[in-house]
Amino acid sequence: MPVKLYYAPGACSLASHIALEEAGAEFEAVSVNLASGEQKHSDFVELNPKARIPVLVTEDGVLTENPAILMYVAMRYPEANLAPLGDVFNLARIQSFNAYLSSTVHVAHAHGPRGIRWADESSSLEDMKRKVQQNMADCFKLIENDYFKGPWVMGEDYTICDMYLFTFATWLEADGVDPSEYPGILDHRNRMLERPAVKAVMIREAG
Amino acid sequence: MPVKLYYAPGACSLASHIALEEAGAEFEAVSVNLASGEQKHSDFVELNPKARIPVLVTEDGVLTENPAILMYVAMRYPEANLAPLGDVFNLARIQSFNAYLSSTVHVAHAHGPRGIRWADESSSLEDMKRKVQQNMADCFKLIENDYFKGPWVMGEDYTICDMYLFTFATWLEADGVDPSEYPGILDHRNRMLERPAVKAVMIREAG
Repeated sequence: MPVKLYYAPGACSLASHIALEEAGAEFEAVSVNLASGEQKHSDFVELNPKARIPVLVTEDGVLTENPAILMYVAMRYPEANLAPLGDVFNLARIQSFNAYLSSTVHVAHAHGPRGIRWADESSSLEDMKRKVQQNMADCFKLIENDYFKGPWVMGEDYTICDMYLFTFATWLEADGVDPSEYPGILDHRNRMLERPAVKAVMIREAG
Repeated sequence: MPVKLYYAPGACSLASHIALEEAGAEFEAVSVNLASGEQKHSDFVELNPKARIPVLVTEDGVLTENPAILMYVAMRYPEANLAPLGDVFNLARIQSFNAYLSSTVHVAHAHGPRGIRWADESSSLEDMKRKVQQNMADCFKLIENDYFKGPWVMGEDYTICDMYLFTFATWLEADGVDPSEYPGILDHRNRMLERPAVKAVMIREAG
């Protein structure tokens, strides 16, 4: 049975979108217009009370949060080999990497466009925006030096960490960070762009 | 072989600490003094370059991030039945719930004590602090109404969601939120405190 992904073009849902494509999943991709507030419409909020993307609708129910959807895709389509499902420790390392991306890297970025979540005064929002560049640079330095193994995040095997790192790496320039400071991650981003699944999703999201 | 958990008393590492105790794991618990900056000492940073707790040291390597450690504990000690390991969808729902706790609930709270991560001016830090109460209240309202099934987070089965929700529920009063607004979660917190494993960990962390 096909699943249905709700995504916003260029948003963090790109990771789940690429994972489904890489898995060869039968799925429908539905674009949600965040700028016009579609995520706050009652029918969407009924699906996801958090009013956020990504949302994956399956025959068993609805899933949210990239780290959960990515692991679900790896487990539901095991023939795609997107995670070492029989290896408890390395599966946990994958989850640890993706948890860092969602709770630290994405949050660091979000203080630019979405600071209003955490403060009200315009001076605070400007202050937060000024700090995004350094915080993102610190995160990517840590990833490059301590977590990225190469050629893929976890080493020789392409996993559900790769499309999630790629997603945030596409935001670096917009956050004022020079990707050439992180040669491993920059090379990774370039090789991701050569993958047919990534190309297909980038074109779909741009369309 | 025993594992070793680095935790800070009362911090988010409480979740991983309780999980190990519930699993009946053979483990050593090492207290890290965040107030004196022990997490920034070179030997700790070598273990975890993020300079954060929790850290779980295993015979295969080091794991960080609560959602990853919690799932690792569930998978390493399957006889404890802390997650539906054979059920791909419900396992993903558990990860989704825990991902929300780490990337939204914990982050909402952190803008009180740790706003300096995201802004520099004291006016911004005060602004952030003022918003913590409402943000935490919104998160717990969402959990109470849309995610908490009862009697445990996922329904009849006690899982790795329960000790993680409990951890943040113990912070509500400090964040100015009245737990009686969320009767399901308050009842859950009380029942958690009756569990021998939770009692043992609370006493150890207080010691």
